[in-house]
Amino acid sequence: MKTNSGRFFEDYTVGQVIEHAVPRTLSGGERALYHALYPARHALYSSDEFAENCGLVASPLDDLIVFHTVFGKTVPDISLNAVANLGYAEGRFLKPVFAGDTLRSVSEVIGVKQNSNGKSGVVWVRTKGLNQHGEIVLEYVRWVMVRKGNLDAPAPETVIPQLSEVVDPSTLALPEGLEFLRYDFGLAGEEHRYANYKIGEKIDHVDGVTVEESEHMMATRLWQNTAKVHFDATNRADGKRLIYGGHVISIARALSFNGLANAQMIAAINGGSHANPCFAGNTVRAWSEVLDKSETRAPGVGAVRLRLVAVKDGAPEFALKDDSGKYHEDVLLDLDYWAFIPL
Amino acid sequence: MKTNSGRFFEDYTVGQVIEHAVPRTLSGGERALYHALYPARHALYSSDEFAENCGLVASPLDDLIVFHTVFGKTVPDISLNAVANLGYAEGRFLKPVFAGDTLRSVSEVIGVKQNSNGKSGVVWVRTKGLNQHGEIVLEYVRWVMVRKGNLDAPAPETVIPQLSEVVDPSTLALPEGLEFLRYDFGLAGEEHRYANYKIGEKIDHVDGVTVEESEHMMATRLWQNTAKVHFDATNRADGKRLIYGGHVISIARALSFNGLANAQMIAAINGGSHANPCFAGNTVRAWSEVLDKSETRAPGVGAVRLRLVAVKDGAPEFALKDDSGKYHEDVLLDLDYWAFIPL
Amino acid sequence: MKTNSGRFFEDYTVGQVIEHAVPRTLSGGERALYHALYPARHALYSSDEFAENCGLVASPLDDLIVFHTVFGKTVPDISLNAVANLGYAEGRFLKPVFAGDTLRSVSEVIGVKQNSNGKSGVVWVRTKGLNQHGEIVLEYVRWVMVRKGNLDAPAPETVIPQLSEVVDPSTLALPEGLEFLRYDFGLAGEEHRYANYKIGEKIDHVDGVTVEESEHMMATRLWQNTAKVHFDATNRADGKRLIYGGHVISIARALSFNGLANAQMIAAINGGSHANPCFAGNTVRAWSEVLDKSETRAPGVGAVRLRLVAVKDGAPEFALKDDSGKYHEDVLLDLDYWAFIPL
Repeated sequence: MKTNSGRFFEDYTVGQVIEHAVPRTLSGGERALYHALYPARHALYSSDEFAENCGLVASPLDDLIVFHTVFGKTVPDISLNAVANLGYAEGRFLKPVFAGDTLRSVSEVIGVKQNSNGKSGVVWVRTKGLNQHGEIVLEYVRWVMVRKGNLDAPAPETVIPQLSEVVDPSTLALPEGLEFLRYDFGLAGEEHRYANYKIGEKIDHVDGVTVEESEHMMATRLWQNTAKVHFDATNRADGKRLIYGGHVISIARALSFNGLANAQMIAAINGGSHANPCFAGNTVRAWSEVLDKSETRAPGVGAVRLRLVAVKDGAPEFALKDDSGKYHEDVLLDLDYWAFIPL
Repeated sequence: MKTNSGRFFEDYTVGQVIEHAVPRTLSGGERALYHALYPARHALYSSDEFAENCGLVASPLDDLIVFHTVFGKTVPDISLNAVANLGYAEGRFLKPVFAGDTLRSVSEVIGVKQNSNGKSGVVWVRTKGLNQHGEIVLEYVRWVMVRKGNLDAPAPETVIPQLSEVVDPSTLALPEGLEFLRYDFGLAGEEHRYANYKIGEKIDHVDGVTVEESEHMMATRLWQNTAKVHFDATNRADGKRLIYGGHVISIARALSFNGLANAQMIAAINGGSHANPCFAGNTVRAWSEVLDKSETRAPGVGAVRLRLVAVKDGAPEFALKDDSGKYHEDVLLDLDYWAFIPL
Repeated sequence: MKTNSGRFFEDYTVGQVIEHAVPRTLSGGERALYHALYPARHALYSSDEFAENCGLVASPLDDLIVFHTVFGKTVPDISLNAVANLGYAEGRFLKPVFAGDTLRSVSEVIGVKQNSNGKSGVVWVRTKGLNQHGEIVLEYVRWVMVRKGNLDAPAPETVIPQLSEVVDPSTLALPEGLEFLRYDFGLAGEEHRYANYKIGEKIDHVDGVTVEESEHMMATRLWQNTAKVHFDATNRADGKRLIYGGHVISIARALSFNGLANAQMIAAINGGSHANPCFAGNTVRAWSEVLDKSETRAPGVGAVRLRLVAVKDGAPEFALKDDSGKYHEDVLLDLDYWAFIPL
């Protein structure tokens, strides 16, 4: 058998290191496509001059291009037989990525726990994205539920990693040279700075995007994510193609420009849940809540901790969870992240 | 309220200067996408060698990439609450734009006139697109009908700008170095030169393109145009997404290659009307009429003034207006422009 | 008449050389789009570092980008009035193409044969793709059935070219510097090397892609292929847009990564048939058969001759032809090519 049928739960052991295949050199082409696929407008990722004015050598590639590229490489090894993508933690963007850089991904298995039904289990991996110099540009923990291939395989010893609920803001990686002292709020698109956001404040991002099959497939392919369920309409009984959760993250983040135009760079991902599946035809909207704030050592640079919630169609305002803690059926995504914003 | 609800009629005053947000560095990615989204084939915008042979340093980005990029930036400030996009005038392409250049836009309000119903008014703006050196690459006047936000706001003094009906061809900006002395008609695709076009001549461009939702949305997003009506299927009662008028301009201009392959560069936009809305599923066709001709000071370079008309589906041949001057219901676009063509 | 109505059978004469229009400078934009449109993952076309490790100066553009670009230019001159695309032979990739290169195409008519019905005929052309240095990067023979424009035109003397059934593997062009001595199988995605493939072996590539209208149109436009039937839904009585055969080639080749991840570069196209038409909504799958193997003079580089078959929807396993030699109705493509693979 020459084709990859993916790994099953019993194929993972704690400490195992998986070097994912197919490194990728990124260019202005990926940036242009990202901006065609998502209504992304954060100025630091749009203009070399704006980025240079913030102390960077050029405009980096959008942080979510980096996330999707690193994530996509892990799919054939981690989630081809995944039943569910359960969560993210300890995501940290460590270095900006520029056109011309080449990314590859490596994951280490840091936890396993067989489910009581004996048919599947949860696998925790810490994934690192590296550039052509071997520098880590991004790392994050992700856990997925994976089917067992051989139901008779013995249950491994349960190892559940200790994960921070929130990335400590004092440990956020500051891109080399970053400063917001000469920040041009006019060119950025809004006047609201660090001081204008209050913890607990909620922002309805107002705009909506109706999702098309070809867009989510083009996006997902661009990250070389190969999960069948996104591309093959014969794969599900209902003939629907499930949309890659990262597509919803990118739509929601781009929509959040309207109200958070100065939350320029994603610094860390504290956690995230794909609460409900998204399908073509859904109209995606987004709202944010300010969860925390912290100053940084970089001149003029603050950090805001944001909850970014993507909802579909006619969700009630600021829809999230019901009293029992279950996500509202119209909630697609609940993402918790730190972003850099001018003081 | 942190989100942008757009400006209303009473927010505009003559003389006001609006610096639009989100500068944009363009690359070969935008060019490739433009050529994937439109059947664009003018050789000067396709090949560095062809452009160099015409005296330019490299192949510029398509002139309509420049137009859409500059226009897109104005949408959040000018047309978010627009009821209608009424017209264009005095559009002039002043400098070619190359991969690596960064564009931003600035508009000055040059006219206002409240409608007699007291609920809306017309706003005229002159928009300039600037590159990273502060050079103006494009300017044009556009007027839109905008809703009043506060119906009690007093009507401003009416100012209607004096606008040229046609850009004087002796004032067309000639790109530095442009000459058509060594022009290769074989590589350009057609033999017809300046002398072969007669004033009054009409050309049916023959080909048609059936428009898809994801294509017009990707195009419109690429220009960072944020008007809801293009992206959100829940925005109109009929569930349709209105197609950005510029998408139709680009389709029609690209189709006009067949018959006008040597009308290489758009030099000026004299005027334009989006006569009827375009929706996904429409098949767009185009025809042109030669309105005028003029030689230029550049070696071998002539200018033709063209009417470019986009029509849909089964429009009658050379459909335009009825006897009362009303546009035929199948006409989508009526654009009047100057193009450079070899003598 | 200024528009191109294409050539008819009687317009072709053996020995005629046609220089096709609209040269094209390719960039990282075309590469990014290729990877958004197809699930392409061969590492040598994805990563500069991987390609440099194989002795190349950088990652070339995917060989099928080159094929489509060269092919697209021939459409207005060769196949605008084609009734059918009958076959390919003697396709040879002679030099890698890199971002920044400019391609143009030239064809020579090498055979003509009027059909017995007197209404059409077969035309054979040998097409060459050239870069900006005038070097041939690709050549291939293609034959098409073309309508007569004037049924009274006399039948030309029949000339049927002698074509090799297979490109002799000892004549495959080895890209300058290519060697697979330090080849990283882990980064390439699979362990299977030259020695692991047996002649006669069949591989089911497992994955499927459901095709969308906007994807095939964007791809086909990107190659500046202008055949109406791909873009204009009013062109056929059934309202369907016929998908460019090259789109199916690229889908199938990309799917073949799963099982043939190390068949990195296409060296030659021995032959090919578009067995049945493909339409949006079809789910395309692929399988391959190893037809032959040959070592090469390049260090560590072998060549495998592969049959690549694209099928749709619920085709039976390894579907190809029935006993009478007729293609199964679910077969879309039958392509015979040589690829370079590490020993």
